[in-house]
Amino acid sequence: MTATQFTPAADATATAATITVDGNEAVARVAYRLSEVIALYPITPATPMGEWADAWAAEGRPNLWGSAPSVVELQSEAGAAGTVHGALQAGALTTTFTASQGLLLMIPNLYKLAGELTPAVLHVAARSLAAQGLSIFGDHSDVMATRGTGCAILCSASVQEAGDCAAIATRASLRSRLPFLHVFDGFRTSHEIQKIHPLPDHTLRQLIPEAEISAHRARALSPDHPVIRGTAQNPDVYFQARESVNRFYDEAPGHVLEAMERFGALTGRHYRPFDYVGPADAERVLVLMGSGCETAEETVEVLQAAGERVGLLKVRLLRPFSARLLVEALPAGTRAIAVLDRCKDPGASGEPLYLDVLTAVAEQWSAVHGAAGAAALPKVLGGRYGLSSKEFTPAMVKATFDHLKGALVGGEVLNHFTVGIDDDLTHLSLPLQEDFVTERPLAGAGGGAGSAGEGGAGGEVRAVFYGLGSDGTVGANKAAIKIIGESTDLFAQGYFVYDSKKSGSVTVSHLRFGPRPIRSTYLIQRPTFVACHQWDFLGRFDLLEGIEPGGVFLLNSPYEPAESWRRLPESLRERVRERRLRVWVIDASRVAREAGMGSRINTVMQAGFFAVSGVLPREEAIERIRASIRKTYGRKGEAVVAMNLAALDASLDHLHALDWQQLDAAAPAQGQAATSDAAGDTAEPSLVERLEQAPAFVREVIAPMLERRGDALPVSALPCDGTWPVGTSRWEKRNIAAEVPVWESDLCVQCGKCVMVCPHAVIRAKVADPQAFAAAPDGFRTAPARDHAFDGQTFTIQVAAEDCTGCSLSTGTSSCSSPRRRAAVSTCTRSASSSCSSPCSSSPGPARAAARRPTSSSPASCSATAC
Amino acid sequence: MTATQFTPAADATATAATITVDGNEAVARVAYRLSEVIALYPITPATPMGEWADAWAAEGRPNLWGSAPSVVELQSEAGAAGTVHGALQAGALTTTFTASQGLLLMIPNLYKLAGELTPAVLHVAARSLAAQGLSIFGDHSDVMATRGTGCAILCSASVQEAGDCAAIATRASLRSRLPFLHVFDGFRTSHEIQKIHPLPDHTLRQLIPEAEISAHRARALSPDHPVIRGTAQNPDVYFQARESVNRFYDEAPGHVLEAMERFGALTGRHYRPFDYVGPADAERVLVLMGSGCETAEETVEVLQAAGERVGLLKVRLLRPFSARLLVEALPAGTRAIAVLDRCKDPGASGEPLYLDVLTAVAEQWSAVHGAAGAAALPKVLGGRYGLSSKEFTPAMVKATFDHLKGALVGGEVLNHFTVGIDDDLTHLSLPLQEDFVTERPLAGAGGGAGSAGEGGAGGEVRAVFYGLGSDGTVGANKAAIKIIGESTDLFAQGYFVYDSKKSGSVTVSHLRFGPRPIRSTYLIQRPTFVACHQWDFLGRFDLLEGIEPGGVFLLNSPYEPAESWRRLPESLRERVRERRLRVWVIDASRVAREAGMGSRINTVMQAGFFAVSGVLPREEAIERIRASIRKTYGRKGEAVVAMNLAALDASLDHLHALDWQQLDAAAPAQGQAATSDAAGDTAEPSLVERLEQAPAFVREVIAPMLERRGDALPVSALPCDGTWPVGTSRWEKRNIAAEVPVWESDLCVQCGKCVMVCPHAVIRAKVADPQAFAAAPDGFRTAPARDHAFDGQTFTIQVAAEDCTGCSLSTGTSSCSSPRRRAAVSTCTRSASSSCSSPCSSSPGPARAAARRPTSSSPASCSATAC
Repeated sequence: MTATQFTPAADATATAATITVDGNEAVARVAYRLSEVIALYPITPATPMGEWADAWAAEGRPNLWGSAPSVVELQSEAGAAGTVHGALQAGALTTTFTASQGLLLMIPNLYKLAGELTPAVLHVAARSLAAQGLSIFGDHSDVMATRGTGCAILCSASVQEAGDCAAIATRASLRSRLPFLHVFDGFRTSHEIQKIHPLPDHTLRQLIPEAEISAHRARALSPDHPVIRGTAQNPDVYFQARESVNRFYDEAPGHVLEAMERFGALTGRHYRPFDYVGPADAERVLVLMGSGCETAEETVEVLQAAGERVGLLKVRLLRPFSARLLVEALPAGTRAIAVLDRCKDPGASGEPLYLDVLTAVAEQWSAVHGAAGAAALPKVLGGRYGLSSKEFTPAMVKATFDHLKGALVGGEVLNHFTVGIDDDLTHLSLPLQEDFVTERPLAGAGGGAGSAGEGGAGGEVRAVFYGLGSDGTVGANKAAIKIIGESTDLFAQGYFVYDSKKSGSVTVSHLRFGPRPIRSTYLIQRPTFVACHQWDFLGRFDLLEGIEPGGVFLLNSPYEPAESWRRLPESLRERVRERRLRVWVIDASRVAREAGMGSRINTVMQAGFFAVSGVLPREEAIERIRASIRKTYGRKGEAVVAMNLAALDASLDHLHALDWQQLDAAAPAQGQAATSDAAGDTAEPSLVERLEQAPAFVREVIAPMLERRGDALPVSALPCDGTWPVGTSRWEKRNIAAEVPVWESDLCVQCGKCVMVCPHAVIRAKVADPQAFAAAPDGFRTAPARDHAFDGQTFTIQVAAEDCTGCSLSTGTSSCSSPRRRAAVSTCTRSASSSCSSPCSSSPGPARAAARRPTSSSPASCSATAC
Repeated sequence: MTATQFTPAADATATAATITVDGNEAVARVAYRLSEVIALYPITPATPMGEWADAWAAEGRPNLWGSAPSVVELQSEAGAAGTVHGALQAGALTTTFTASQGLLLMIPNLYKLAGELTPAVLHVAARSLAAQGLSIFGDHSDVMATRGTGCAILCSASVQEAGDCAAIATRASLRSRLPFLHVFDGFRTSHEIQKIHPLPDHTLRQLIPEAEISAHRARALSPDHPVIRGTAQNPDVYFQARESVNRFYDEAPGHVLEAMERFGALTGRHYRPFDYVGPADAERVLVLMGSGCETAEETVEVLQAAGERVGLLKVRLLRPFSARLLVEALPAGTRAIAVLDRCKDPGASGEPLYLDVLTAVAEQWSAVHGAAGAAALPKVLGGRYGLSSKEFTPAMVKATFDHLKGALVGGEVLNHFTVGIDDDLTHLSLPLQEDFVTERPLAGAGGGAGSAGEGGAGGEVRAVFYGLGSDGTVGANKAAIKIIGESTDLFAQGYFVYDSKKSGSVTVSHLRFGPRPIRSTYLIQRPTFVACHQWDFLGRFDLLEGIEPGGVFLLNSPYEPAESWRRLPESLRERVRERRLRVWVIDASRVAREAGMGSRINTVMQAGFFAVSGVLPREEAIERIRASIRKTYGRKGEAVVAMNLAALDASLDHLHALDWQQLDAAAPAQGQAATSDAAGDTAEPSLVERLEQAPAFVREVIAPMLERRGDALPVSALPCDGTWPVGTSRWEKRNIAAEVPVWESDLCVQCGKCVMVCPHAVIRAKVADPQAFAAAPDGFRTAPARDHAFDGQTFTIQVAAEDCTGCSLSTGTSSCSSPRRRAAVSTCTRSASSSCSSPCSSSPGPARAAARRPTSSSPASCSATAC
């Protein structure tokens, strides 16, 4: 992690330069400067905030008052919370970063912080809680679990807001004396990269009230003016003491409003505890909190343009909850309200925000809108969306507004609904109009090779990149966003989808660039550009799903354009023809290898993106990559810089337009005939095809998830109590290792360390009578067992190549005890696209050369027969 | 703790014998028999449940299936919760007992238990949470903090219910697959003793469904049928999986209803998820949960009898919350509802139960009562009461109903009010009609000595006992309740008020006996009997406040009746005259001492209570004490039994009626004249008098608390953030030690261990130049310092007698290093009523003999001058 520079320029002027960062960094940059003590325990997705703070403190970067904060890592979030409490009691400005179960462990101390009226801001990258299964992704379950603690809760909906509200919360906390949880959506905001306006030091100085900091310090526990806190209170006085804080809670929304107004005056960016967006005469209003507000706002604009009287109320200040402010923010003509909660309270009377809004309307509507409004209160419905970062799209927003139409005409309307899933059990889900998208189409969609014009898609470039974890795709894309974001006037957004297997799994990068602010807090639905960084992916997913007609497809291919076209699956070719895509191919692996960069194809593919995506004029783009290479690799020496610059030039040389119209015209029959051959040679059979023998659960539930179609699984498909069958990974042969271990039977001392060390249990040893190996296939390696306890028996090591992740942990001399120069289990290089499933010890060369065997020859079953 | 016997008779018949137990024991008796694994971490007020389980398991007592549960104590409630989760996953029937912060530590696992649809019942003695200060007392803050976990929450309102619902919850949990939190009010239910019907084994066997137990076991993790739980779920499926549980939550209220109906058929005791009490045409309805329901029911009966159309809805099933069942339980004519929450959610839109009820009415009223009811929904208001076991009295119930009258006539009505305190800051508290009591007056109130007739107070005896922690008062009263409860047809209730200083502080026992069920879950307001077990208390509190005219006052006095009367504070004598009390005196300390029982006056005072309170005919009562003595002390040998029986006889011999009318008539002037002398000699000056020099906070806040007038402190008196001044204990000289240490300067080796060991820092050593002691008072003991480092200097040990608790920890040879036979810091006996504040090393006899010195001679200031 490289620290983004706080440039002097950014500090010196009010119209600060923009930066392109994710939500975590935006928050950390503010929280760090406003803290004296930072207590940490890492938890996804809040970890990077702590990492930034730790790195900055290590390099001595000062906070707003010129000293580096004291950063301490504890043994759990309970310890972090205790440290926060202790440091605050000693008068330090203190923070921590957490999420999910980490936040749950802080609950006891949150009650204390609030009970003692302690100003502090804790930053929460909101995340799901472990229930039937754990999830590292984002929703509001954790935040809502703390809503009774007495802490204020301020929620940001975007990266810009997250940085801004980190500061706003600090002012409001110091002035109100309430501890604040500043929350923003895990992943969707914490890990989304956006071009934002940072907060320079001088702005923070004008925002953070020194008098209240002095007051905080004056309240600290100190032998100079000793007081007691944490006393035991009995029934006689506890209740009164608990009520003595009411005025602080009554006043807090005012402090938040004041902080927002002060912030607006300083920066020009205006927030309110409840922000209404939409026409003043809206009849149907959506209420929600967090990153979904962005998508909802984008959708409301489109629906409003289509004549619908719909509006959006963004909730920023959840606690202390001001019913009055909320109702005042609603249009007087509101007739139906849908409150969407990004969490689920099973068995509750309703989800938390729904209860709040329903109560606010019941208590305050007549008082606020009584004269103007109708006699009847607006109908309030509650729904759930987006659990665990489930996509929340414009179609879902529209579905919710459509549902509210039912409330306008009266009668029974489904309440406590869900949106975004197919609930085929309790039938609470709303129907979706899947083709409702708000992304603008490409204006000048034309066929043939070439770059998308800048006027296309309203000047927007929406680029999707399919990469392999650790192949550099994500890193290169992050660099691309920064290059474009920080050196042009374009707005930029990046979001990265990993699966939870991390290294070695598929990563999908979603990059948006354009002249207008980007509020699309959902994955790209209509890409104008798709890059496939691994040839192996072609048959595995529908890469070109949703691509705009006239869009660009960039393919890393080991073949020349014509051969590439011939080998593409026909379904893909058909999509190219139908959408009249412009296709480019580049043998990035070869370019990278020849440039001395090994398997790191990131620079090559990045060059291709800049050259053909049309996000910038080509020459300007290339020049910016050159500058970026010099900046990124400068500290690693001129040789590395030169190597990357050479790779850039080589990339452009090897980037070839694929003129499929000409190829089709030249050999339409041949192209057609080649299809089946290509599919057989280059693309894996689909999981469903391979797994015809698999149990029903694997075929019906796991296979769609592996094929990235899990979102379409209905509720009934999922085990209600989180119970899953075992032994399913044998059906998921990932074949992701570029290199796999090979057993050198003549060198091996049979110490067994490689077996122990392999983190995926891919290397397995066995000792058996020699006759057990009589039926072993030709070339199956064995050796006489060396241990005297096994005299006369036969030893073997087998490697499950399909399950290997190529992590190299167990290879080389680090774990191997062989006394000779080479490790007895060494590494062979194989193509990640190989689907070899045989015990690869029988083939000491690339595993690709081994004969393909049925999956049942994997070690689990193999050991039952041969070993 | 002695285990209450499960008698064979109780198991053999459906009409089981009653037992007299507290809520913790009632629950533990059921939970123990229905568990195979019990994981513990002790926390007040749930600790006794674990202690019972531990004791029973140690003696091998079987559960319902014939084996003793495995009882394990962990290192925190987090560990206990993890053990519960693990044992349940292994198929065991598992429970734990907890409260407050302990429950908070379990929250992460509660989400897991619910998410995995795991049947289990966890028993919670609901307790306040630490915020501005900690409290060990009861309210629903902890329970409400778990309401989003997905656990079912079933709440009991009385000791009988707690035992019953422990079983009902178990059936409902096994059938619904939801984990249940079975909650009841800490202290008010957990520590209230009531005469209840226990659940015999055969009833439990008919209630607990074996088929569902088998199903639970079949779902266990086992190598015989392996499955995986605790998987990581990604955005594609987590949401669907979370929705797959809906039907379990939809069905759970039905399972609870079924379990209650089944239970009713088996026992004749009928419960419902929501129980309405009151007239069918009630207009004003109170909704609440927990022990307050009992007081509310008692009050509704009185108000209804007075013609008020008021009703009560008891909430038992808080989660899963059935809006439909709640609204169906409300009378169709309900026009105004007050929902009282026993917790505070600062900054929330409302307290939890209020939000639930408001939502239920908004969603379901028209559907349920639409035809019959008025067009307008009932007005719903929310209030808070009873935090941290704050008293909840009939006057508070009435105040709430009175407040609802405002809602009937329309207009602005105070919402989010409090009841039971004086909120002079935010003015949310309701006014109370303090003299509204529902306790029945004594019917035949007459003057003079004698016992209260059985017809008095509707046959009710309401007895209040003032004792000193560890003087045996509470234990004797618990025995008295059992004697009466288990050997007569009378209903019996006991509740004990300790202050948090525990041993050595004042205990007040509240015992009710009577022919009708006792629902008064509040302290006795109109006692028919008051016993003062310590002469020292006479001037400290208003012992006879509220006593019924014609009631009985039993006084432990070191004086004969006439002298006692002469020495009583005039205010007390005036109260006796005004209320025409019957007064008895007994020198219990002398009787106990002479009977060889040391300072344990419990048997003596118990004999006095039985002899004069009228709860039973005197002869019968005495006989029952004899039986009780034989049962209680039997295992300690015949000598102990004989000693106690002799003490009983001696007690009756020394019990003297005090005929104050005759004494007043004989010497009215003398009695009057003696007043000031008596007050000066026998009673301490009030704290307020003593503390005229103290800081304002001590005078205005701490002093009233020490005088048991803390309930009257207004909200403004309490520090809003829990910050208290230090050094206040110097103003609270408790003088509670019956024995204090005395320094034997000639024996002492000056090892300093006694100083280290004294847990109250009462024994302090000092070395100084001899001239520092030049001005020491006469008799001030010193010795040459023995350590060579202090050659030529002078050593002293001073004892702060007023602060000593007489715990004996630091006395005797256990800590003293003196090589001679006697400990150098030995113990002298002094009267607890002494107010001697001098360093008592100067007076090796009873401290009482020492001259009274001003408080400023306590060690803290003493060391500043002499030492």
